[in-house]
Amino acid sequence: MNRITSLFGTRYPIVQAGMIWCSGWELASAVSNAGGLGLIGSCSMYPDTLREHICKCKAATDKLFGVNLPLIYPQVADHIQIIIDEGVKIVFTSAGNPAKYTSFFKEKGLTVVHVIANTKFARKCEEAGVDAIVAEGFEAGGHNGIEETTTMTLIPMVREATNLPLIAAGGIGTGRQMLAAFALGADGVQIGSRFVASEESSAHPEFKRSVLEAKDGDTALILKKVIPVRLIKNKFYHDIKVMEDQGATREQLYEHLGRGRAKKGMFEGNLDEGELEIGQVSGLIHKIKPAGEIVEEILQEFEKARAELLNLEIWK
Amino acid sequence: MNRITSLFGTRYPIVQAGMIWCSGWELASAVSNAGGLGLIGSCSMYPDTLREHICKCKAATDKLFGVNLPLIYPQVADHIQIIIDEGVKIVFTSAGNPAKYTSFFKEKGLTVVHVIANTKFARKCEEAGVDAIVAEGFEAGGHNGIEETTTMTLIPMVREATNLPLIAAGGIGTGRQMLAAFALGADGVQIGSRFVASEESSAHPEFKRSVLEAKDGDTALILKKVIPVRLIKNKFYHDIKVMEDQGATREQLYEHLGRGRAKKGMFEGNLDEGELEIGQVSGLIHKIKPAGEIVEEILQEFEKARAELLNLEIWK
Repeated sequence: MNRITSLFGTRYPIVQAGMIWCSGWELASAVSNAGGLGLIGSCSMYPDTLREHICKCKAATDKLFGVNLPLIYPQVADHIQIIIDEGVKIVFTSAGNPAKYTSFFKEKGLTVVHVIANTKFARKCEEAGVDAIVAEGFEAGGHNGIEETTTMTLIPMVREATNLPLIAAGGIGTGRQMLAAFALGADGVQIGSRFVASEESSAHPEFKRSVLEAKDGDTALILKKVIPVRLIKNKFYHDIKVMEDQGATREQLYEHLGRGRAKKGMFEGNLDEGELEIGQVSGLIHKIKPAGEIVEEILQEFEKARAELLNLEIWK
Repeated sequence: MNRITSLFGTRYPIVQAGMIWCSGWELASAVSNAGGLGLIGSCSMYPDTLREHICKCKAATDKLFGVNLPLIYPQVADHIQIIIDEGVKIVFTSAGNPAKYTSFFKEKGLTVVHVIANTKFARKCEEAGVDAIVAEGFEAGGHNGIEETTTMTLIPMVREATNLPLIAAGGIGTGRQMLAAFALGADGVQIGSRFVASEESSAHPEFKRSVLEAKDGDTALILKKVIPVRLIKNKFYHDIKVMEDQGATREQLYEHLGRGRAKKGMFEGNLDEGELEIGQVSGLIHKIKPAGEIVEEILQEFEKARAELLNLEIWK
C-alpha cells in the first residue's frame, strides 16, 4: 500500500505523463489497463478532440485515468467543462497557480494533482488543497521550470517543504531510476519520454525513431526567454541557439517560432523544422514496446535493483 | 566490500571533492580520518602551496588521501612533479583528456580516477586505463560539462557505457541522495558542496553562510561560452546574465571576468563581486558541521533510508 496507489486506486505508483501529441486515449488506456495511471494530454487537443479522447478512453478501460490540463491553454475553460461533463475523476494541472482551479475541482469530487518545479509552488499546492504534487526536474522533456533544479535535488527539497503525496518526474524511465526517486523520498513516479517510445503513443514514427537514436547530450533546454522547453538538438534547435547566442529578444524568438512547431515535429515527423520535445532519459531508451510491457519491465527492474541494494555490502 | 573502498583502502565509498579555495589539508585529512577519501583541491594553489598542503595532510592523517588535478591548470607539470615527489598515492584528474597522463601516473604506481560528464569520455577513460570514473551531473557546483546531463540520467548512461568502478557526483549531499546514486548503479559518491559547509573547509565564513542561506533556484550554470560554472546568483552572476542575454561574446565575457573572481568570492568573502561556486544541493544544507560528523550523518541516513526502502510496500 502506498499513498499514490491509494489516491488513484491503481495497482502501481506509476503515472504516464500527459504529453502533447503523444498521449491520447490509446496510450492512456493502455497504461491504466497495465496497472498504472494513464493521462490524456489535453494541451494539443481542441475541445471536441479532448471529448472524443475521453470517451474512447472510457470505452477502452474500466480503470481510472486522468487528464493533464496546462492552465496556460487558451481554451482551458472549455476543457474544464468537458472534464466535468464526461465525469473524469482525476486531473493533473500544470503551468499555472494551483490556487486557481483546485477548490473548484475538489468541490466537483475530482482528485487534483498539480505539477511544480520548485519549493515555493510546493507550498502553494499545500495551501490550495491539492491531493498530490508532481515535482519535475530539469532533465524532463517539454516545458520546464526556470530554476533548472534537477530531480536529484528537487525531490528531497520538496519533501522537506511539504508532506503531501509526492510524484517524482524528470529523468525517470527505468526501474533503477524509479528506485532512486523512492530513495529520494518520492511516493510515486511520472514517466513521459519512455512512453513516447511506446506502440500506443501517437507520436510520429520518425519522431519515435529519433528518440531511440538520442544519446546523452542530444537534448537541451532552450527558449528560456519565452518558455523553457527541452527538445532534441535538431536544425530547429540550432537555429534558435544561434539567435539566442546573439542576444535575440523574446519578440524575435516568438516571431521565428511561429505556430505549430511541436505538431510539425512530434506529430507530423518533420525532424528538421519541428520541435521534438523529449527528456534526457531518451539516452536510455532503445526500443519501442507496448506500454503495458514498459510498465512491467520498469517494475521488474525496480524489484531487482531493490533486492541488490539490500544485499550490497558497502562498508568495509 | 565495495569496488571503491577496495580501490582506495577506505572504510566508506565517500569521496570529498577536491574544490578550489575550500579543500586544503585540513578538510582532506578530516575526511580521510573519518573513513572517506579526502582530496586536496590543487587548482587554487601555487606549486609551493600544494606541496605544503600535501605535507601537512600527511602529518594530519595516516590514512590515504588524494589530489584533484584539473588538467587545464597552467602549471600542471609542476603539480604533477610535486604529487610524484611527495608520494601521493591517488590522483583525480579532470577537465581534460584522460589519455594524457593516466599511463604516466599508473607507471608511477598511482591510482588514477578521471572526472567526466558524458558517455563519450567514459569510454575514453576505459581506453586510457583509469582505475575509476567520477561521473558528474549538471547540478554540481563549479565547473561543469557542456551537455548539462543530470546525475539521474548520467549515472545509468555511464553504467551502460562502461563497467569501470563508478563514483556519482552532482547533487549528492545527504544519505538519501547517496542511496539514490547507488540505486542508479554507482559504486561510490563524490560530495563537494556539503563539505564546503564544514568546519574544516577553508571557504570564507561569509561564503559558508551564503551556502546555508541558498534555497532551490538560488544557483545557476552560466558562462557557457567560456567554461560553464555553477554558482550562487549574486550581483556578479546577474551582471554576467545581463551580458549573456544581450549576446555578449566570449571575449567580452573574459574581459568582464578579469582574474581571481573565485578567490574574491569563496576565499575573501566578497559576496557581491566574487564567484561563489556551489551546487544545487546547497538548498539542503542547513548547518556547518565538522567533516567527520557530516560523513557519519550521511551514512546513518543512508542506512535508515535503505531499511525504509526495503520495507516499503509499494504494490497494491
